[in-house]
Amino acid sequence: MKNINKIIVVPDSFKGGITSQRFCEISATAIGNIYPDAQVITIPIADGGEGTVDAFISALGGEKISAIVKDPCFEDMESFYGMLPDKTAVIEMAACAGLPLAKGRENPLITTTYGVGQLIGLATEKGCTGIILAMGGSATNDAGCGMASALGVRFYDEQGTEFIPSGGTLCKIKTIDTRGLKLVVPVTAMCDIDNPLFGQHGAAYVFAPQKGADESTVVLLDVGLSHFANIVKHQLHIDVDELAGGGAAGGLGAGAVCFLNADLKMGIDVVLDTADFDSLLSGTDLIITGEGKIDTQSLRGKAVIGVAKRAKVKHVPVIAVVGDIGDDIEKAYELGISGIFSINRVAIPRENAKLRSESDLSLTIENILRFVKSL
Amino acid sequence: MKNINKIIVVPDSFKGGITSQRFCEISATAIGNIYPDAQVITIPIADGGEGTVDAFISALGGEKISAIVKDPCFEDMESFYGMLPDKTAVIEMAACAGLPLAKGRENPLITTTYGVGQLIGLATEKGCTGIILAMGGSATNDAGCGMASALGVRFYDEQGTEFIPSGGTLCKIKTIDTRGLKLVVPVTAMCDIDNPLFGQHGAAYVFAPQKGADESTVVLLDVGLSHFANIVKHQLHIDVDELAGGGAAGGLGAGAVCFLNADLKMGIDVVLDTADFDSLLSGTDLIITGEGKIDTQSLRGKAVIGVAKRAKVKHVPVIAVVGDIGDDIEKAYELGISGIFSINRVAIPRENAKLRSESDLSLTIENILRFVKSL
Repeated sequence: MKNINKIIVVPDSFKGGITSQRFCEISATAIGNIYPDAQVITIPIADGGEGTVDAFISALGGEKISAIVKDPCFEDMESFYGMLPDKTAVIEMAACAGLPLAKGRENPLITTTYGVGQLIGLATEKGCTGIILAMGGSATNDAGCGMASALGVRFYDEQGTEFIPSGGTLCKIKTIDTRGLKLVVPVTAMCDIDNPLFGQHGAAYVFAPQKGADESTVVLLDVGLSHFANIVKHQLHIDVDELAGGGAAGGLGAGAVCFLNADLKMGIDVVLDTADFDSLLSGTDLIITGEGKIDTQSLRGKAVIGVAKRAKVKHVPVIAVVGDIGDDIEKAYELGISGIFSINRVAIPRENAKLRSESDLSLTIENILRFVKSL
Repeated sequence: MKNINKIIVVPDSFKGGITSQRFCEISATAIGNIYPDAQVITIPIADGGEGTVDAFISALGGEKISAIVKDPCFEDMESFYGMLPDKTAVIEMAACAGLPLAKGRENPLITTTYGVGQLIGLATEKGCTGIILAMGGSATNDAGCGMASALGVRFYDEQGTEFIPSGGTLCKIKTIDTRGLKLVVPVTAMCDIDNPLFGQHGAAYVFAPQKGADESTVVLLDVGLSHFANIVKHQLHIDVDELAGGGAAGGLGAGAVCFLNADLKMGIDVVLDTADFDSLLSGTDLIITGEGKIDTQSLRGKAVIGVAKRAKVKHVPVIAVVGDIGDDIEKAYELGISGIFSINRVAIPRENAKLRSESDLSLTIENILRFVKSL
């Protein structure tokens, strides 16, 4: 009989289905049914979008702190940030500059990340020693200038008039004065895309259409982002022209680098580092990860493979419990996954399978552990 | 890393899909890919119907011997039986009295098991030391009287005229003379149903409709079977009134007991005993079984559970690799199954899943073994 003393559950969410937190809850119960004495550590993987603060707090504890800040349309709203036990603040840009918050008012020419800066300021005042900036699901295209303004950076136009740049007015920036910037703690930005700030693969061309921009607006936004890059290159001596991830969250990726000296990192690495995953691996007998579908795309450095790569170094077995298993995923085994198990227990279409996915997940995990126990 | 030196693959067929032999081939290849040095023993489970001889020969070796015998409609046909290396003959009733052989001529009033008796006679002449009689898929309802006739049993009517009884003439039997019976070797009959010979749950009422009988024919057939039971009770002093399995194969179950002194056994037990499964278990690290669907019905003593019960005694882990996993199958674990894995890798309807079932089976077994290897 194979003994299991310690299991880490570290799943991504099943898009449109089981959340990563729910996956953790279901797994913890299933593990308890088969190995009641095993230590279970749950780390739901946050993807940098909506729910990132909740995921971090669920994994590490800490509290969610409410705050009134500007929404994407510069109206006051009640938002929040997370403060983890180690005094790392988690700022979720979607919590005050997310696309759903602009519903009916989507317009990347005027939407702002100002509230993001306010949240960062409040977390800093509260004594945070570091900041995780989750960049996902933005309504904006302001290259983080709204955020910078809220933190004391001043932007002036050709006439010397101070203003808060948004997507439509980036091209009017003549001078940037960062002397009033109030930030002193290190910032890590979660960034899972590698799009540059501007150009055909940049923030405007690739992402602005889904934020409400028509073709001519996209061109205008792209010109603004390109102008911004030019200004920071000459005045701040920071070159973001080719920065991978600079185009994340409407250019917030570039803005975070320029104004916050942020480190852009893959979301999974931020989660695992913050949870001190590598240390947790000591004495771990099994890791359970998962996602909605494992396929050739998910083998390119996202959550599940991110977990597997680290586990492989320490020789800890990793199983991926997934919705669907795509074709040609044999490379996953080389990358450190020991076993891939689908929760599909009967041959039925996805819409029917979804209705029983929580039960299927629970039974699948119990079954795997029963089998392990028998070995 | 978990080492595996010896694996037994002992699957049932996936009805209408992967045969048990194909399951064995696919598994052997998959095992070779992950544990190239492991000893692999394959025992495809025969279900007593069409393909039983092939399954036995595939598991144990031996030869398939051709023979011209009577088909269900008393026409000559080329049939066969199996001779295993230990000189056990396997007689598949479906090979000369099966329903597909009567296609277009289905009529349980006149169909006969005469060819079954001929095959038994030929195998005996060939020097077999025991007989396995696979009863499945029959076109007949003659209580095995055709078989008995071919082996030298004589049936007489009220006028003292000898005849070969069929379903429609069972009721005419007045006297049975078994003195000419030529059989001397022990017979084991594979029987997975427990229906009695006659009555509401008997051979005629339950099975004759699918053999071409209308309602009034069913009544007539049932009267004949009941009459047969009465005759053997008084003349042969054998009571088959309540015999579980007496109604198998149109009453061949009862006939085999009356005329061949056959032992009616669950098909899975016949297969496992013939393969000397209990001895093979020594040194076995893992057993892979499987079937099309594991559900509450398959938990009632059929193939997969039959395997599991024996493995449990010797503490050998058993995994069931199946098409679908039904609800409420937790009892399977108590009965000795360590893990149940569906080959469904994506949520798609059965008709689509079937097209990829062989590939899914192969990948599923490889995946499980990769996981085992990592532990």
